[in-house]
Amino acid sequence: MVVVMEERATEEQIQHVIAQLTEMGFDVHRSTGALRTVIGAVGGNREADPRLVEVLDGVHEVLRITEPYKLASRTFKPDGTVVAVDDVRIGGDEVIVMAGPCSAESETQVNTTAAAVKRAGAKILRGGAFKPRSSPYSFQGLGEAGLQMLRGAADAHQLKLVSEVMDVSQIEQVEQYADILQVGARNMQNFTLLRELGRSRKPVLLKRGISATIEEWLLSAEYVLAGGNQDVILCERGIRTFESYTRNTLDISAIPVVKKLSHLPIIVDPSHGTGRRDKVAPMARAAVAAGADGLLIEVHCDPDHALSDGAQSMFPSQFDRLMAELRIIAPAIGRSICLEPVARRGWGH
Amino acid sequence: MVVVMEERATEEQIQHVIAQLTEMGFDVHRSTGALRTVIGAVGGNREADPRLVEVLDGVHEVLRITEPYKLASRTFKPDGTVVAVDDVRIGGDEVIVMAGPCSAESETQVNTTAAAVKRAGAKILRGGAFKPRSSPYSFQGLGEAGLQMLRGAADAHQLKLVSEVMDVSQIEQVEQYADILQVGARNMQNFTLLRELGRSRKPVLLKRGISATIEEWLLSAEYVLAGGNQDVILCERGIRTFESYTRNTLDISAIPVVKKLSHLPIIVDPSHGTGRRDKVAPMARAAVAAGADGLLIEVHCDPDHALSDGAQSMFPSQFDRLMAELRIIAPAIGRSICLEPVARRGWGH
Amino acid sequence: MVVVMEERATEEQIQHVIAQLTEMGFDVHRSTGALRTVIGAVGGNREADPRLVEVLDGVHEVLRITEPYKLASRTFKPDGTVVAVDDVRIGGDEVIVMAGPCSAESETQVNTTAAAVKRAGAKILRGGAFKPRSSPYSFQGLGEAGLQMLRGAADAHQLKLVSEVMDVSQIEQVEQYADILQVGARNMQNFTLLRELGRSRKPVLLKRGISATIEEWLLSAEYVLAGGNQDVILCERGIRTFESYTRNTLDISAIPVVKKLSHLPIIVDPSHGTGRRDKVAPMARAAVAAGADGLLIEVHCDPDHALSDGAQSMFPSQFDRLMAELRIIAPAIGRSICLEPVARRGWGH
Amino acid sequence: MVVVMEERATEEQIQHVIAQLTEMGFDVHRSTGALRTVIGAVGGNREADPRLVEVLDGVHEVLRITEPYKLASRTFKPDGTVVAVDDVRIGGDEVIVMAGPCSAESETQVNTTAAAVKRAGAKILRGGAFKPRSSPYSFQGLGEAGLQMLRGAADAHQLKLVSEVMDVSQIEQVEQYADILQVGARNMQNFTLLRELGRSRKPVLLKRGISATIEEWLLSAEYVLAGGNQDVILCERGIRTFESYTRNTLDISAIPVVKKLSHLPIIVDPSHGTGRRDKVAPMARAAVAAGADGLLIEVHCDPDHALSDGAQSMFPSQFDRLMAELRIIAPAIGRSICLEPVARRGWGH
Repeated sequence: MVVVMEERATEEQIQHVIAQLTEMGFDVHRSTGALRTVIGAVGGNREADPRLVEVLDGVHEVLRITEPYKLASRTFKPDGTVVAVDDVRIGGDEVIVMAGPCSAESETQVNTTAAAVKRAGAKILRGGAFKPRSSPYSFQGLGEAGLQMLRGAADAHQLKLVSEVMDVSQIEQVEQYADILQVGARNMQNFTLLRELGRSRKPVLLKRGISATIEEWLLSAEYVLAGGNQDVILCERGIRTFESYTRNTLDISAIPVVKKLSHLPIIVDPSHGTGRRDKVAPMARAAVAAGADGLLIEVHCDPDHALSDGAQSMFPSQFDRLMAELRIIAPAIGRSICLEPVARRGWGH
Repeated sequence: MVVVMEERATEEQIQHVIAQLTEMGFDVHRSTGALRTVIGAVGGNREADPRLVEVLDGVHEVLRITEPYKLASRTFKPDGTVVAVDDVRIGGDEVIVMAGPCSAESETQVNTTAAAVKRAGAKILRGGAFKPRSSPYSFQGLGEAGLQMLRGAADAHQLKLVSEVMDVSQIEQVEQYADILQVGARNMQNFTLLRELGRSRKPVLLKRGISATIEEWLLSAEYVLAGGNQDVILCERGIRTFESYTRNTLDISAIPVVKKLSHLPIIVDPSHGTGRRDKVAPMARAAVAAGADGLLIEVHCDPDHALSDGAQSMFPSQFDRLMAELRIIAPAIGRSICLEPVARRGWGH
Repeated sequence: MVVVMEERATEEQIQHVIAQLTEMGFDVHRSTGALRTVIGAVGGNREADPRLVEVLDGVHEVLRITEPYKLASRTFKPDGTVVAVDDVRIGGDEVIVMAGPCSAESETQVNTTAAAVKRAGAKILRGGAFKPRSSPYSFQGLGEAGLQMLRGAADAHQLKLVSEVMDVSQIEQVEQYADILQVGARNMQNFTLLRELGRSRKPVLLKRGISATIEEWLLSAEYVLAGGNQDVILCERGIRTFESYTRNTLDISAIPVVKKLSHLPIIVDPSHGTGRRDKVAPMARAAVAAGADGLLIEVHCDPDHALSDGAQSMFPSQFDRLMAELRIIAPAIGRSICLEPVARRGWGH
Repeated sequence: MVVVMEERATEEQIQHVIAQLTEMGFDVHRSTGALRTVIGAVGGNREADPRLVEVLDGVHEVLRITEPYKLASRTFKPDGTVVAVDDVRIGGDEVIVMAGPCSAESETQVNTTAAAVKRAGAKILRGGAFKPRSSPYSFQGLGEAGLQMLRGAADAHQLKLVSEVMDVSQIEQVEQYADILQVGARNMQNFTLLRELGRSRKPVLLKRGISATIEEWLLSAEYVLAGGNQDVILCERGIRTFESYTRNTLDISAIPVVKKLSHLPIIVDPSHGTGRRDKVAPMARAAVAAGADGLLIEVHCDPDHALSDGAQSMFPSQFDRLMAELRIIAPAIGRSICLEPVARRGWGH
C-alpha cells in the first residue's frame, strides 16, 4: 500500500506509521517531498487491512496497490480459462447459450422447452429445482423431482445441464444431476457454500451479487479457486441502481472489465438483468457484441403460466429469432454461435 | 394490484387482462375513464407476480397495492414488539447498547473489553466466532473456542450475548452459547438459514443487506416470523451508494420508515455503517436522536492489534464518552439509557 | 392517481381524502373492498403532487397512473421522430455516428481529426468550445475561436457539427456555428437553459444526467418540446453506481426502455460512459446491437496530448476498426451504417 | 500521483511512463520492488488527468494523492470558517435554523409563516421566488414579487433571508433582496453560475447535487472560493440511492466527513432529504446530533394548500416541538440553539 501523510504531519507521526507498517510485515520506502511525505509499503500479506493505517494520526490517505485476489487475476494466469463440459467449451471461440425455464415445473414443460432451445442452438439447459425467493409465500421449487426432470430432458436432447445450489446441504444432490453448479446472486458471499464448492469436481457458475463490486465478485471466485476447483464461470446479471423502470441495470461494461482483470470466462443473464421479456433480446445482443463468452436465458414453453419469472421468460419463437440475430453479430468480434448438424436438420422440418 | 391500460388499448386487450387476473384468483373492478381504463384487482394471493400482467399487450403499468409481507407489518400488529432477553428489553423505553469486539481473539481480549463496555453501560456483549470475510485469506474466526470465551465474559460481567451464525450447520452450536443469534448482511437473503432460524427459540438480530430495500428486509424477517419465531430485531448497518469516502452510507432514515411500516424493533450498527472509528460516535448519536431502539458498536481493548475491523473499533475511553453523550440525547425523545447500580459503582473507581 | 387506504382507515379519513382529491380537480371513483378502500382519481392536472395525499391520515399508499410528460411520450406520438439535419437523418434506418475531439484545441488538431472520422464513416463532427469542468483549474475551452475551427473543419469535410452550449448566454453564438446544440449531463435540469432552447430552430442533443431517472430525462425533453422545438435527440452517457472501476455505468438497457416510452431518437456516448479508451469499442458495439439510433464518440488525432479527456479518446485507427465491426452488427437488427461514395474513394488510398 | 506498474511491465514501458510524467511537469521517484515497480509523481499541476497515464501500456493502476481542491480544504485553512450575516454566525457554537415555505405564494402566507418560525427560534427565513421544477407544467415561482414579500416578512420579524438563484441572469435581482444566495442541487455543477457567484459579496449556500460525491461538492465550492467569495455554506440534502421509500437518502455521515476534509460550515436540509413531513423531525434531530452547523427546514402555515412541496412542509406546531427537542440534543455536543430575548417574550403570550 502507499501511505500519503498530511502536509502538516509531524516526524513522530511518520515514525509511528512506519513502525505500524513494519509490524504488519511490510518493506517500507519513504519519500520525503517538499509538501508531503509518502510511504510505500510492499510485501506484507495480501489481507492486511489498510484502514488500520488510515486511522493513525497524520495520515491523509492510504492507497492499496494490489488486488486482494490472486488466483482469479490475469496477472497470475495470462491466458483465458476455458471451462469444458465434454465438448462444450465456455471461454473459447464459440459463444455458448444456456437456456431453459426458471424452474422445473413438470416433465412436459421441461421437455418441450428443452426441445425448443436445443433446436434453436442452445448447448446447455438451465432450470432450477431449488429457488431462492424473496417472499416465504412464493413457489420454492420441486427439489429432487425437479432435478430428475431436468436431467432427463437434458439427456433426451443432448444438452448439458446447469442448476442452482442454494446451500451446502444441497451440493451432493445437485452434483448427481447437473453438469454445472450455479451459485445465485444472493449467495455470492455465502462463504460457507463457496468453500464447499471449492472441493467439487463440477464447474461453478458464479452470479454477481446485486450490489457486488467486480472486486468482491472476483474475491468470491477466489474462494472456489483456492479450494482447488479451477472451473469457475462468472455471470453478470444486473446491479441495483436508482433507476426503477428496469428491475436491475445490466452492467454490460463488466464484460470488458472482467476480461482485463481476470482469465475466467464471463457470461450474461439478460433475463434477470432486465426482468422483462421484451428487454431480453436487445440486451442479449448487446452482451454478445461486447464480448461475452455466453448467455443464460430464461425460455418457457408457456410463459403466461410459469410458476416463477414468467414475465421475463421468452417464448420459444422469440428465442429462435434472437439466436438468428446473434449469429450475425458474433462474427463482428471473431466469435461464432454454432448449430449442431442434428439441430440444423431439425430446423428444416 | 391496479392495472392501468394504455390509452389506445383495445377492448380485446382489456378482456384478456381481466381473464388473466381472474385466473390468478383476483376479484376484478373495472373503471372505464374518458382516456384510460383502470382495472382494480383485490383478493388473490399475496405472491402473485404483477409482472405477469405487466407484459400483456395494451397494459401501460401495473401498480401493487399491498406489501408482500404480513406478519412483519404494523397493519398486522399495531403495537410495537419488545424482544426480551430476561430483563433486557429491546424495543421498550430504554435504548439498549450492544458492544464488544468484532471477533473473539483471546480470553484476555474478550474479558477486558467486556468489563469496559459493561462499565460504560452496555447491556449486551457482541462478538463473533464465525466471521464472513470477503477474502478467503482473511482471519475467519475461532469457532467454538471463541463462543466459549464470549459466553464466559458475558457471564462474568452480567451481560447478555449476541453472536453471528453464518450457516444452518452452525445454529445448534451458537444457540448453546449466545442469547441472540445474529444474521449478517451478506446472509440477509440466505433463505435456507432464515427458515431454520424460524424454528429457533432464541431471538434473531437480522442485519439489512448492503443493497436491500426496506421491503426486502421485512420480507426476510417474514421468513423467520412465518417459521414461528416472533423475536426478530432489525439492524441497519449501511447501504451501498456511489459515495466512496465512507465504506457504506448509514441510512438513518430507515429508522423512522421501519417504525412506520413494522412493529419490530430496529437498532443501528454505526461501526460497519461507516467503517471508520472517528465516524462512529456522530452516527451513533444520530441514530439515537432519530429513534433507534438500540445500537451495536464495535469496541476493542486494543484496536490497533485487532485481528479484524480494528479500524472501525472504538477505544474504551471513546465509548465511555459516547455513552455520556447518548444519555443527554435520549431524553429528547422520551427514551433513556440506564446505568446499572453495579456499573455506577465501578464507574467511581 | 390511485389512493390505497390503510386497512384500519376510518370513514372520516376516507371522506377527507375524497374531499382533497376533489379540490385538486380529480374525478373520484371509490372501491370499497373487504379489507381496504381504494380510491381512483382521474382527470385533474398532470402536475398534481401525489405526496399531498400521501401524508393524509389513513392513507397507505398513493400510486401515480400517468407519466407527468406528454409531448415526449409515445402515447402522444406513436411514430418515431426522425431529426433531420439536411440529409443526415437521426432516428431512421441508418445508425448515425458523431465523432471528434472532446475540445477544439487547434486548427490542425480539429482538421486532422475531422478528416479521419469522415473517412471512417462518421456523418457528424463533435467538439466542444465551452467545456464544463468539475475543477475550476482545468482547461475550459477556446470559446468562439474553437467554434470557428470546428465549423471550418466540418465544412471542409462535409460533416455536420454538434457542439455544447452551457448557458443561456452562449446560445446565440453556438447557434451560428453548430447544426445541433448539445446540453451536457450536468445541465440536464438547468431549466432556464432548456426553456430557451425550446425557442431555438436547431435540434437539441440532450444528455442524460448522471443520476437522472429515465422519467426525469423525458421531463427535461418535455421542457424543450413544450417550448416549440420538436427536434430533440436523447443521449445516454452513463449513470452513477457503486461500481468504481468504470467512471460511470453505461445503461444500455435505457435504449429499449426509451424506445418504448418515447418517440424521440436515442444515441449513446460510450466515451463518457466508460471513461477509458479500451472500453469504448465494446460498449459502442453493444449500443448498436441494442438498437441505438446513433453514437457520440471521442476521437483525437493525438490522444496522448489532448487537453481534455485524452484517456477516453480513441486513436483514428481504433475508430476505423470499430466502424468496420459496427457495419457487421447493424444489419442484425435491420439497420445500416453507410459509407459515402466520396469516403469510400478516400478509403482506397 | 502514484503509478503502480504491472508485474510483467517491461523496462521500456516503465521508461515511457516516466517520460510522460516528466512531460506533465511532475518530479518522479522510482521504487523497483521484487514484484512491481511503483513510480511516485509529485509537484505537477493539480488538474493533471491521471487517466492519461492509466491508459499507457504496462500500467496497472494510478492512484491520486492530493485532493483536486485547495481553498476548500482543511489542509489549506485548519480553522473552521464562520459565515456571518450581521450577528447570525453559521459555523459557530450556535446551531442556526433556517425555516420557511418552499415558495413565496402570498403576503399573508409568507408573513404568517415567518412569524411562526421566528417565535420557535429560527434565525433565518427561507423561501423561493424562482423554483426549479422537473416538470415544465409545475408552478415556477412568483419571481421579483415573491422576493419582495420575503424581504418584507424577514424585516418585520428580524430574520435574515436565504433565497435561491437559478441562473446568472437572476443574481443581481436576488442579491438586492436576500442575505444569502442559495444554489440548488440541480445547479451544483452549473459552473457559469458558480463562477459569477464568486464575484458576489453575499454568502452562498451550496446544496449537494443529488448524486454528487463529497469531492465534487467541494470542487464546486472551490469555484466560488476561487472567484474571491470566501463565504460558502455547504448544505446536505439527500442523495439518490436504490431505496425508493424515501425520496432521497439523507447522508448524515457527510457531516463528520466534511468537517474533517473542509473548514466550511455544513448544514442539513431534512425536508428535501426525506420528502415527507413525518420524517423531517427525526432526521433534523439526527443532523444536530451528528454535528451539523445548522438546518434548512420547510415550514408552511397551511401545508395542505401549498403550491409546492406541501407534503414535506411542517406545520408550525410540529416545528415548535422539533425546536424544543433540538434544544435538549445540542448540548450533548457542546452546541446551543438560542432563543432571542424578544422571541422568548413572544413565546410567553
